[in-house]
Amino acid sequence: MATEKFRPTLKDVARQAGVSIATASRALADNPAVAASTRERIQQLASDLGYRANAQARALRSSRSNTIGVIVPSLINHYFAAMVTEIQSTASKAGLATIITNSNEDATTMSGSLEFLTSHGVDGIICVPNEECANQLEDLQKQGMPVVLVDRELPGDSTIPTATSNPQPGIAAAVELLAHNNALPIGYLSGPMDTSTGRERLEDFKAACANSKIGEQLVFLGGYEQSVGFEGATKLLDQGAKTLFAGDSMMTIGVIEACHKAGLVIGKDVSVIGFDTHPLFALQPHPLTVIDQNVEQLAQRAVSILTELIAGTVPSVTKTTIPTALIHRESIINSTLRKKDGLPNE
Amino acid sequence: MATEKFRPTLKDVARQAGVSIATASRALADNPAVAASTRERIQQLASDLGYRANAQARALRSSRSNTIGVIVPSLINHYFAAMVTEIQSTASKAGLATIITNSNEDATTMSGSLEFLTSHGVDGIICVPNEECANQLEDLQKQGMPVVLVDRELPGDSTIPTATSNPQPGIAAAVELLAHNNALPIGYLSGPMDTSTGRERLEDFKAACANSKIGEQLVFLGGYEQSVGFEGATKLLDQGAKTLFAGDSMMTIGVIEACHKAGLVIGKDVSVIGFDTHPLFALQPHPLTVIDQNVEQLAQRAVSILTELIAGTVPSVTKTTIPTALIHRESIINSTLRKKDGLPNE
Repeated sequence: MATEKFRPTLKDVARQAGVSIATASRALADNPAVAASTRERIQQLASDLGYRANAQARALRSSRSNTIGVIVPSLINHYFAAMVTEIQSTASKAGLATIITNSNEDATTMSGSLEFLTSHGVDGIICVPNEECANQLEDLQKQGMPVVLVDRELPGDSTIPTATSNPQPGIAAAVELLAHNNALPIGYLSGPMDTSTGRERLEDFKAACANSKIGEQLVFLGGYEQSVGFEGATKLLDQGAKTLFAGDSMMTIGVIEACHKAGLVIGKDVSVIGFDTHPLFALQPHPLTVIDQNVEQLAQRAVSILTELIAGTVPSVTKTTIPTALIHRESIINSTLRKKDGLPNE
Repeated sequence: MATEKFRPTLKDVARQAGVSIATASRALADNPAVAASTRERIQQLASDLGYRANAQARALRSSRSNTIGVIVPSLINHYFAAMVTEIQSTASKAGLATIITNSNEDATTMSGSLEFLTSHGVDGIICVPNEECANQLEDLQKQGMPVVLVDRELPGDSTIPTATSNPQPGIAAAVELLAHNNALPIGYLSGPMDTSTGRERLEDFKAACANSKIGEQLVFLGGYEQSVGFEGATKLLDQGAKTLFAGDSMMTIGVIEACHKAGLVIGKDVSVIGFDTHPLFALQPHPLTVIDQNVEQLAQRAVSILTELIAGTVPSVTKTTIPTALIHRESIINSTLRKKDGLPNE
């Protein structure tokens, strides 16, 4: 190896520019909080000095903590609890400890978590992003902090590596099954429109309905909470839905609650498609047919990309998607069979 | 206020003793890793200098992070997920952010978490302790780090403040109900004997059986996992148990699984007492009768004690217990009524 030549640090850039390290960092991340003229001057200076963002990353991580930070939007949502548990288990095999923060679907909380994790020297961050924190996440990446997004993506042309699930295969298989069994109309409980998962799943649901030629179905625009699932399921039942199709695991619990309170037996009086795997979904009297995201594989991929970033290598894949799958159990009524057998439709 | 006089720091003690800060810290914490003679010499020197542990705590926290650390043994256990969520919510109202680590019931992982949290400047720690980490936790407290134990206590005469639940009222009410309904014999799934919760609940169960004069019942010595609950419930059913009584929420899921696989309808073919509240426990076809620990109140008390410690005031109460309560739903069969009505006993 050739002798390593002088590598200027962010501190060098800041000192020569006569600004604070924080300002230099923001200017290099092209943060509009710094006046455009100042940004340009500092960027030019950094370029002249041969400064590279990684030099800062190296300085930041001069004493590696061997710890990664994980930010999820909820812990009472079993899907995210399973995700952080698998992230920790996978990271542990790579010699990395894991600390966790819960953003509670709140941008301010997430922003504070990102600051804490960064200033307390984690080696990298795996984050289920809140879209309001897009700029902060992009800045962190530009400053050399290894960041991987999991479960959700940022809108636009973000270059932050992602590990997400592809809802299409599972949703298409579910709609095909429901169309085949004539378990219609479907009442779909959509996730929130300010999450990529909410938008994509609704889009894939509508596309699947079009493909199956069952026409437009009932949709409730909801959110990732049990109470919202309960409210939506109750409304969709009132509107005549024969199948309740939940857009996430928390709304699946809300769907079970709504059926329970309405005295409807799932798999006998009403059909249900759940989302995600939960031990108690499979233990319903008519075990729930669900769309499975393979959360373990998602978590493993996110850690795999992050460890490559931490090692300073360019990850082999930066946008990875895991296909969803339909797990067919017993919560879908086959009305076609009933018709054939001369049984009433309900 | 009088002018504050010179307060020696741990660094001063270490320098004058000619040892490292780590050694001085351990000696003052009476850690046997330091030779007895050295410990005595350093303790004497600290006393001569007028060193007080709090001075170190103040130095450690000279720049308050307004962040607390929480260590729980599992996140897929809904009880602990609910606990950290409530701790975060309560801490947030007090202006404190929360970072979480999952010890995974492993002493080495907990030990690493304690080190990370301490060295990264959290203002205090709420911890579900692993008993193998007792000395480390005691040392931390002696060094002035605010620490509160939640859910579990340390054996012996630990002076670390605790917020735990008292299993006695809930368990006594459950056993009384089962005795009254003649839902016997009871098969009790005990938690592990290396946790205070496992020991206390089993003790209270045995005492309640003695009080109710129903004699010795069936006991399976288990652990806080669904798979262990499944195994234990299956064995207890084989041994003729008419009621399965779960010693925690994960084993409750294992009990539901065992009944499901055996084709037994809970509340009709077999009686079940669950532990803790989970939305899906209340949504079983015969909603589960459970023992509720009031996890929100537990979390709030733990934060309340911790904020007092962080503020430097002596907490008004350092050992707080929240009584458990029986939530009576529909999973207990009344065999006495059946007998009276001339119905068969099962």
